[in-house]
Amino acid sequence: MGEERLLEQLIEALRCLPGVGPKSAQRMAFHVLERDRDGARHLSTVLKKSCDEIGHCDLCRNLTEGTRCHICDNPSRSSSLLCVVESPSDVIAIERATGFRGSYFVLLGKLSPIDGIGPSELGLDLLKERLETGEVTELIIATNPTVEGEATAYYLQELAGKYSINVSRIAHGVPLGGELEYIDQSTLAMAFSTRKPLSK
Amino acid sequence: MGEERLLEQLIEALRCLPGVGPKSAQRMAFHVLERDRDGARHLSTVLKKSCDEIGHCDLCRNLTEGTRCHICDNPSRSSSLLCVVESPSDVIAIERATGFRGSYFVLLGKLSPIDGIGPSELGLDLLKERLETGEVTELIIATNPTVEGEATAYYLQELAGKYSINVSRIAHGVPLGGELEYIDQSTLAMAFSTRKPLSK
Repeated sequence: MGEERLLEQLIEALRCLPGVGPKSAQRMAFHVLERDRDGARHLSTVLKKSCDEIGHCDLCRNLTEGTRCHICDNPSRSSSLLCVVESPSDVIAIERATGFRGSYFVLLGKLSPIDGIGPSELGLDLLKERLETGEVTELIIATNPTVEGEATAYYLQELAGKYSINVSRIAHGVPLGGELEYIDQSTLAMAFSTRKPLSK
Repeated sequence: MGEERLLEQLIEALRCLPGVGPKSAQRMAFHVLERDRDGARHLSTVLKKSCDEIGHCDLCRNLTEGTRCHICDNPSRSSSLLCVVESPSDVIAIERATGFRGSYFVLLGKLSPIDGIGPSELGLDLLKERLETGEVTELIIATNPTVEGEATAYYLQELAGKYSINVSRIAHGVPLGGELEYIDQSTLAMAFSTRKPLSK
């Protein structure tokens, strides 16, 4: 066969989506072709438009189609409370779960010298500029509790220290509804050693 | 917010894919935007092209971008052996697993009067025309062993009977590597009652 058939090209192209193997890609291709061509055409248009138009917010590096994201652009959000997260999905998770009314800074990664990711890749120059203005009064560090996330948190804490800004880290421990019996050992050990005194 | 944000539109649009819920759609959107814009642009192009160009084969109703699918178009495939399947994915499965060198006829469904799917929706007029030519010597029925699939098989058997064409049904029973202990009751009961005498 000279040229690959279009159906095979489609199945192959669908595999750029995460978690989509050959079987699911085939299922997706047949599904849209047999039952939802309108949906697929719409997806094609929105996907192209998103790739072309969605960039990063000038201020917080979150994904947005404008120069400023909808959070930085919102005058009712405080710019004195700044929450640093690793990725845009963390912003969505915090927005959904909490009543946080401050702003964000999205690192789009975490410090990982082994992969060549240093402070400049995480846009920390931009963060520095923001801290220098004196506008920020509290920096909330919400990086993930992984080795790299913790290293990043430590780096951010040092950075904020230079500008005498209050720094806080979101709490880690046993999740609500979690049962001690089923919690992994390191979380439990950490929760145990960072126990808090209860007021009498 | 007047207009829905592009990112949210993208997440929503991805949900036209089967098995993609809100969480996976979000993960897919962030993944392609952060890591694979080229892949996503390619997907967008191929998806649009597939929706516009892929139709059904004139002869066997399989999905194809031409008027004839690559199997009907292949002169080395016999047109006297005709295998009837429910969907294009069944063709791929049979092509992958067997050395079948005949042709297919794809019903794109199964008889289901309750859903308003009768012989004409399954293109059985087209199949009749084909059987009338006298070219087909054996009709292999490979519909699924479900209630509707069996009803469809029975209908096809009657149809082929009118033209005195040999009809066969693919075998059903305990799958290779399957353990009797774990096979569902109806498969086992069927396998038991349709047991075959072994030659001495």
